[in-house]
Amino acid sequence: MVQSQAGTLYIVGTGPGDPELMTLKAARVIGSARTIAYFAGCGRQSHARAVAAAHISPDAEDLRLEYPFTTECHVNDEKYIVGISEFYAECTARIAARLDAGIDVGLLCEGDPFFYGSSQALLDRLGTAYKTVVIPGVTGMSGCWTRAGTPMAHGDDVLTVLPGTLDENDLAARLAASDAAVIVKVGRNLPKIRAALRRSGHAGRAVYVERGTMTGERILPFAELDETAAPYFSLILVPGRQRRR
Amino acid sequence: MVQSQAGTLYIVGTGPGDPELMTLKAARVIGSARTIAYFAGCGRQSHARAVAAAHISPDAEDLRLEYPFTTECHVNDEKYIVGISEFYAECTARIAARLDAGIDVGLLCEGDPFFYGSSQALLDRLGTAYKTVVIPGVTGMSGCWTRAGTPMAHGDDVLTVLPGTLDENDLAARLAASDAAVIVKVGRNLPKIRAALRRSGHAGRAVYVERGTMTGERILPFAELDETAAPYFSLILVPGRQRRR
Repeated sequence: MVQSQAGTLYIVGTGPGDPELMTLKAARVIGSARTIAYFAGCGRQSHARAVAAAHISPDAEDLRLEYPFTTECHVNDEKYIVGISEFYAECTARIAARLDAGIDVGLLCEGDPFFYGSSQALLDRLGTAYKTVVIPGVTGMSGCWTRAGTPMAHGDDVLTVLPGTLDENDLAARLAASDAAVIVKVGRNLPKIRAALRRSGHAGRAVYVERGTMTGERILPFAELDETAAPYFSLILVPGRQRRR
Repeated sequence: MVQSQAGTLYIVGTGPGDPELMTLKAARVIGSARTIAYFAGCGRQSHARAVAAAHISPDAEDLRLEYPFTTECHVNDEKYIVGISEFYAECTARIAARLDAGIDVGLLCEGDPFFYGSSQALLDRLGTAYKTVVIPGVTGMSGCWTRAGTPMAHGDDVLTVLPGTLDENDLAARLAASDAAVIVKVGRNLPKIRAALRRSGHAGRAVYVERGTMTGERILPFAELDETAAPYFSLILVPGRQRRR
């Protein structure tokens, strides 16, 4: 049952990184929320908060939700499963306390919240008890393909979004079966992705984008990328069939 | 070679339909362009122009690019191929005349321009001769899955965007192989899509969204949809595996 006196939880997509690529609605809601919540890596700055900074009210409370892990921990490890569950329970309690006090909370989320967003765990826990409004954002992949000058999907193209965590055979087969593809979660999966791209026949037209729309942006043909690992804000684009009229 | 005295062509994504879901950058550029160009169906209002209307300068020139076809014409018909090619050549000439005169042109595009966007044909023709800036937008599918309250992709989900124009066997196989899927270009393909969704085993969790984020929005479980055809602004969502922690 939604509590009528309680505040509203706004889950706000902040877009691909360029602050000007936030929506008008996101800017308005961020400016009016009395508490601004955001996830952050242990000891790190929050990217979503930095993107939204110009719109946050100087009187707003800053609610930092800091992940309990310092290095990447496999999602199937028991330590991770227990730790992340406790962490989300704690985040839920902290946000619920504000909502119960009638305070609107803006939870910032990079990109588009419902597209590989970390806010989904909190929506599961808070969405039935409190009024919740989700604001879509420009995805990171849209930001990247725009900056790369690479139209992605045309006409009857099939576009597939593939996490680089898939195994090499699966990646290669799915790439070969797609007209256009975006590979997310590149990181340390890069050597495996490279092998799969070569097997699929698409390596020659793939494009690598790092920090698309942000400071330090780097865009190059995938074939020219030498590294064996990629940073967090990176993805690989395989543009569609480029049928021209 | 880019002409230095010429105007700039801005290809502007206007987002999923709700005018407040345009980006800050789109609003700024639309407000400053001296010519606003947009595609429109024969005799119809332009959707993208209506979304952008509040930001267009009262002094701006309105450059309506009206498709020469009244009813849907198959893209492989010779009449269509010749007609659309002539139409794009004419659009190119009209926009180029403004750019040559040093006027910035904002070409409005629903959703995100590089994601099944109709502006790509003009980018091909104008992008090498004139300075061109593309502004990404929130896609129609992001607007729809947000309004449906349906988180789409999580963790290692594979998300596939499928045009409903594919044949039934292909659709069914690709749906069965995806964790999450979005079916675009529904229209008169609806009976075929329904059969493919049933064969894939995903019909029970599919959601139908019509006019997402817009006036007249309609959202219902796909299983409850009785029609045999759907309007232009409609799509079908198959949400991801919904793994919860």
